[in-house]
Amino acid sequence: MKAAFPGSFDPPTLGHLNIIQRSASIFNEISVVIAENSQKSYLFSAEERLELVSALVKPWENVSVAVCTGLIVDFLKKNSIPVIIRGVRGGDFAYEFELSMMNRALNPEIETIFLTTDPAYLVIRSSAIKELASFGGNVSSMVPPEVEAALKAKFDD
Amino acid sequence: MKAAFPGSFDPPTLGHLNIIQRSASIFNEISVVIAENSQKSYLFSAEERLELVSALVKPWENVSVAVCTGLIVDFLKKNSIPVIIRGVRGGDFAYEFELSMMNRALNPEIETIFLTTDPAYLVIRSSAIKELASFGGNVSSMVPPEVEAALKAKFDD
Amino acid sequence: MKAAFPGSFDPPTLGHLNIIQRSASIFNEISVVIAENSQKSYLFSAEERLELVSALVKPWENVSVAVCTGLIVDFLKKNSIPVIIRGVRGGDFAYEFELSMMNRALNPEIETIFLTTDPAYLVIRSSAIKELASFGGNVSSMVPPEVEAALKAKFDD
Amino acid sequence: MKAAFPGSFDPPTLGHLNIIQRSASIFNEISVVIAENSQKSYLFSAEERLELVSALVKPWENVSVAVCTGLIVDFLKKNSIPVIIRGVRGGDFAYEFELSMMNRALNPEIETIFLTTDPAYLVIRSSAIKELASFGGNVSSMVPPEVEAALKAKFDD
Amino acid sequence: MKAAFPGSFDPPTLGHLNIIQRSASIFNEISVVIAENSQKSYLFSAEERLELVSALVKPWENVSVAVCTGLIVDFLKKNSIPVIIRGVRGGDFAYEFELSMMNRALNPEIETIFLTTDPAYLVIRSSAIKELASFGGNVSSMVPPEVEAALKAKFDD
Amino acid sequence: MKAAFPGSFDPPTLGHLNIIQRSASIFNEISVVIAENSQKSYLFSAEERLELVSALVKPWENVSVAVCTGLIVDFLKKNSIPVIIRGVRGGDFAYEFELSMMNRALNPEIETIFLTTDPAYLVIRSSAIKELASFGGNVSSMVPPEVEAALKAKFDD
Repeated sequence: MKAAFPGSFDPPTLGHLNIIQRSASIFNEISVVIAENSQKSYLFSAEERLELVSALVKPWENVSVAVCTGLIVDFLKKNSIPVIIRGVRGGDFAYEFELSMMNRALNPEIETIFLTTDPAYLVIRSSAIKELASFGGNVSSMVPPEVEAALKAKFDD
Repeated sequence: MKAAFPGSFDPPTLGHLNIIQRSASIFNEISVVIAENSQKSYLFSAEERLELVSALVKPWENVSVAVCTGLIVDFLKKNSIPVIIRGVRGGDFAYEFELSMMNRALNPEIETIFLTTDPAYLVIRSSAIKELASFGGNVSSMVPPEVEAALKAKFDD
Repeated sequence: MKAAFPGSFDPPTLGHLNIIQRSASIFNEISVVIAENSQKSYLFSAEERLELVSALVKPWENVSVAVCTGLIVDFLKKNSIPVIIRGVRGGDFAYEFELSMMNRALNPEIETIFLTTDPAYLVIRSSAIKELASFGGNVSSMVPPEVEAALKAKFDD
Repeated sequence: MKAAFPGSFDPPTLGHLNIIQRSASIFNEISVVIAENSQKSYLFSAEERLELVSALVKPWENVSVAVCTGLIVDFLKKNSIPVIIRGVRGGDFAYEFELSMMNRALNPEIETIFLTTDPAYLVIRSSAIKELASFGGNVSSMVPPEVEAALKAKFDD
Repeated sequence: MKAAFPGSFDPPTLGHLNIIQRSASIFNEISVVIAENSQKSYLFSAEERLELVSALVKPWENVSVAVCTGLIVDFLKKNSIPVIIRGVRGGDFAYEFELSMMNRALNPEIETIFLTTDPAYLVIRSSAIKELASFGGNVSSMVPPEVEAALKAKFDD
Repeated sequence: MKAAFPGSFDPPTLGHLNIIQRSASIFNEISVVIAENSQKSYLFSAEERLELVSALVKPWENVSVAVCTGLIVDFLKKNSIPVIIRGVRGGDFAYEFELSMMNRALNPEIETIFLTTDPAYLVIRSSAIKELASFGGNVSSMVPPEVEAALKAKFDD
C-alpha cells in the first residue's frame, strides 16, 4: 500500500522525520508531498524544501519526495495513492479531523490516517522554529543539522 | 421571538442554509446579518453577499437579510432582536463560548443560542471553500448552485 | 414555541435556575423534565426532585415541571415539544454535541439548542455539590436555600 | 502489513463495521480483537460477541476475529501484529492519544493509527445503544439487523 | 510560601515525583496531601499510601506528607497553606479548571497553580498502572521500584 | 522566589491585573515582561505599553515592569528568574501547554506555572478589546480607566 505525507516542511523537523520513519515501516511506499500554495509565503522556496527533505529521507529506500502546487487530493489521484498520513498532537485534532473530512468530501476513495506525535517532538512546530531561529535561539534539538545550517544561512542574510 | 444569525457569508454555504432553515422553524422571525468589517478583506463585496444570501433565503417568509457595518450587539439593540444564533461544530466551541460572553458583557439582555452543525455539513467552511474554488476544486456538494456559479465567475476573472 | 429543559436535577442548582430563567424569556413555554432512570441511583427520589424543582420555578408562569421515566425524545413527541435546551460549559461540549446528534437520530424533528452557562455558575455541578455537602462543606453559593436545607436533612440522617 | 482493531464490541455497531471495512482496504490482514476484562461487566458474553462479530465480518476475506483476555500489546506480540487501529471522533482524542502512548510505553514496536469516524456514525456508541435498547428505542440505524435482534432478545428477557 | 500537592496517590508514580521535585524548587515547603474519601475504594489503604509516599519524598527536606479525610480546602486552611499545585496534561484541563474554581468558591484565599506534566510522564496514570499491574504488565518505567514491589505484592495475593 | 509574567499587554486588561495581583501574593517578586517583536504590529508602542503597565502596577511594591525584545527564556536567564506565569482559560490550554514545553526545551531550568483566569475576566482578550474600541464599543468593564482613555485617544486620531 502506498501512502502520502503532505505538509509545508518549512522547514522539515525532527518531528517530521519521526513520522516518516514510522510510516515507512507500515507502508510499502511513502511519498512526502511538499505543498506549495502561491497565496502563502514561505521562508524556504519549494526548491529549497525539496532539496532539504530529499537529503533527509535518503536513508529510506521506500520514501520519495515531490512538490504539489494544486489540491492534495488531485495529486494523490494522479499518483494512485489512496492514503494520507498526518501526525497529530492533542490540541490540533479538531482541525485535522475537519481537514480529513474535507479531503474525503473531495474524493471518497482517499483515507486519512493519523499517527500520534512522539512526546519527544510535541514541542516542535515549524512556525515556532522559524521564530526561534530569527531570534538566534538554539534549535539543534528540533531540526536535523542540515536544516539548522539552512536556517542560520537564511537569518544571517 | 426574533433572532439574528450573524456571519460573514463569504460565501454562504449549505451549512449556513441548514442553520437558517432550522432556526426559521424555532423563531418567528430570523434576521440573517452579514457582517462587513472595513479591516477585513472579503472575496465577495457586502453588496454581492447581500444579493447571494437574499436569493437563497427567499423560500422562507420569516427570514430577512441585512448588512451590519458596526457592532452586532448595537445592530440587535436597534432592531429589538434579543437572540443571536450560532452554528457550532465541536472544535470551535471554545471560541464561540468566549464570543457569546463578550456580547453578553456588551449587552446583558442579548442571549446567544447554539445549534449544532449537521454532520453532513461538518466539513464545510467558507474559508476552505474559497481555497478549493481557487484551485478549481469541485465545491458543488458544499454550496448552492448560485454560489458555485458566483465562485466560478470570481476565479475565472 | 415550547421547549424542554431535561436533566437529573439531583439536586437543582443556581446554575439550573439561571438556564430556566433565560429560557423562559426566549420561549413561550418551558417544561423542566426530571429524568428518572431506574438503572441510576439518585440522592433525592424523583418525588423529592419534582417537589424541589416545582417550588423553585413557581415565579415563572410559563414554566412547568414533569418527571420522565423513558426516553426524552418520546416524552417530547408525546407532549409536542420540538426543542431541547441544554446549558453548556466548555469542557462538556463534545459530550453534549453527541447527545444532541443521538436525539436527532431518534427523532429528526427535535432540535437541541445550547445556552452557555453563566461564568458565575461555571463551578456548580450537582455531583460536586453532593460531595461537598457530604463533607459538611458550605454550598450556600451554589444552590437555593430550599435545596441547601434538603441537602442538610439528607446528610444529617 | 497486519493490523488489529481492538474494542469491547458490546455490541458491534455500524460505526465499527465502517472502520473494519476501511481498514481492510488499507491493510493485508485485519484482526478484530474483542477485549474481555474480567473486572468489567458486559451485556453480551465474550462468546456472544465473538459470534456476532464473526457473522458480520464474513464478507471480508482478510478479516479475522479473536478474543483477548490479557493485555492487547501482549496479544499483538504473540500474533506478530505491529499496528493497532482506532476510530476517533473529536471529543475522545485526548483519551485515545494517552492510550496509544501507554501501549507504546509497553511495546515501542507497536504503532497506533487513527481513522476518523465517518460523520454518519458520529452518534453511535455501544454504551448509548444499550441504554436506548433498554428503553425500547429504535436502534435500527445504528447496528446491523443481527445485532438489533440480539439486543431485542436480551432486553425481552 | 507553602504549597500543597493533593491527590489519591493510589499508587504514587514517577509523574507524581516529577511534579513534587519541580514544586519543591519553587516553593519553600511542599505538603503532599493524600486524599482519603470513605466513598471511594482504593487499592492501597491510606496507611500504605502514606508509607509509600513518605519513603519516596525523603530526599527532599522541604517536602512532608499528610492524609486528609475531609475537604482539601479545610485542610489547607487549618495548615495555613494558600496554594494548591496540580499537574496537568492537555485533555484533563477542563476538569482541573472546574475543580480549581470550585475550591476558590469554597475559599477565595486559596490559589491553584498548574504545572504541565513532563512529556516523559504523559502516559502515566495511577488507574492505568493498576490495570496493567493486574494483568502482570511491566510498569517499571512508570513507578519507582518501591511501588513496583508493592503492586506485585498486591496482585500476587 | 522570583517570577515573570510575560505578554504583549496591547493593551493591559483587568484580566492581566487580576493575574498580577494573585501572582504578587504567591511570589516574592514579579517581573511583568512586555514582549516586543519587531515582526508583529501593535496598537500601542513598547514605550506606551511600558508606561501604561507601570502606572497600573504601582500599588504592588514587589512588581516591576520591563520590555523584552528577544527570547523570553534569554531574558529570564539574564535576570535569574526561574518561573514563568501564564493565565489560562480553557480553550487556549493546548497552545499554552506547547509554549511551556518549547520554553523548557530552550532552558530546562525554567518552569511555567499556570493560573486560571478568573471567570469574571474570561471574556477579556486584548485583541477583542481593540476591535471593540475601534467600533466605539464600551470597554469600561474590561480595562482600567487609564487604558480606556488611551484607547479612546488612539481611535479618535
